[in-house]
Amino acid sequence: MTETSPAVPDSVRIHRIPERGRYDRAEIDAILDASVVCHLAGIDVDGRPLVIPMQHARVGDVVYLHGSAASRHLRRAGGGADVSLAVTILDGLVLAHRMFNHSVNYRSVVLRGTAAEVVDDAEKLAALEAFSERLLPGRWAEAAPPDAQELRATTVLRLPITEAAAKVREGWPGHVDEEDDLTRTWVGVVPVREVPGEPLPHPGIPADVPLSPAVAAWVAARR
Amino acid sequence: MTETSPAVPDSVRIHRIPERGRYDRAEIDAILDASVVCHLAGIDVDGRPLVIPMQHARVGDVVYLHGSAASRHLRRAGGGADVSLAVTILDGLVLAHRMFNHSVNYRSVVLRGTAAEVVDDAEKLAALEAFSERLLPGRWAEAAPPDAQELRATTVLRLPITEAAAKVREGWPGHVDEEDDLTRTWVGVVPVREVPGEPLPHPGIPADVPLSPAVAAWVAARR
Repeated sequence: MTETSPAVPDSVRIHRIPERGRYDRAEIDAILDASVVCHLAGIDVDGRPLVIPMQHARVGDVVYLHGSAASRHLRRAGGGADVSLAVTILDGLVLAHRMFNHSVNYRSVVLRGTAAEVVDDAEKLAALEAFSERLLPGRWAEAAPPDAQELRATTVLRLPITEAAAKVREGWPGHVDEEDDLTRTWVGVVPVREVPGEPLPHPGIPADVPLSPAVAAWVAARR
Repeated sequence: MTETSPAVPDSVRIHRIPERGRYDRAEIDAILDASVVCHLAGIDVDGRPLVIPMQHARVGDVVYLHGSAASRHLRRAGGGADVSLAVTILDGLVLAHRMFNHSVNYRSVVLRGTAAEVVDDAEKLAALEAFSERLLPGRWAEAAPPDAQELRATTVLRLPITEAAAKVREGWPGHVDEEDDLTRTWVGVVPVREVPGEPLPHPGIPADVPLSPAVAAWVAARR
């Protein structure tokens, strides 16, 4: 797993509010790893852009995407066409005195590049394990692994992290000390985060099956 | 505000797991309205796809996007080029007996079409009020409205909702009754939702400024 920061390609450099741009691979990786869902954009058969939500998992310098072998968007993306992938985590609402200075706190990453389908079964299986471990550490060992037929029914793409940038807004609203009437309304930040609810056991499982240790640990870490 | 369901264009019809496709405008609108962040994809000046996170607000049959007048992505998108917009809300982790049947519950919407810049100041101001009201109902009345200079510094795009589809996964893992050893591991759903934390007042405001009623109501509704 390399954590180097190569020269920033202009294709992903943050021009708008450049101080929010982050090009450190460790920071980019942390944002990619913190989000369950990504959005993958490509150019559709009709020549028009199309963006679709997907799941991803980063392993070292690669982002894996997976879905059904029947997914048209995934098949097109795996054919070597250009794609762009974005991940965004909302961290809070930012309230200022003036509407104009209202904002949100967030962490986002945009990747660009070309994806290729993973054809090697060992790499495919390792990617699926990475998906599982990113989503819910420990679950891979609890559940039945994919068999040969399930592996064939799954398409995995690899998108190398070559053109990547993060954009982060954090902290207080700006321009607060410039306000002439700061007392007129409350100004501050409302943090927001994704929180798990109570795990719901499938009604078909026996009542004495204990909660999965992987689920219990995942929920406890996010409470 | 029309809530009709026009014929579904093939460009957005859900082909993969078609039973998850939803084309009812009321359902599409509810998903658009429930998410703070969207992802807007377009074709960049270099001919390659690019997807960027943004904020949006739906008003009737239109999705408004806003950002700085200096945003290159927004300016390109407002020039009449094709765009695609997606919104995704994660609702839970879906745990099955086999890794292959693991999934996530989610609600997503994909729009396609062409966006145009809003040049009329009254429509622009109404769109900004809609942004504010979608994000935090009541805040618009609490904060200072945009002045002429701030209005000029803001670009607002309108994307009509013409090609739109939702895709929703909900409920239990599938294939549970086909398992031969259902007792081997816990199977079920872990709900996930975005929850506000304690509002953090800006250290520069006087200690006796009460919490904004809009913030208090927003937090209470999500606890």
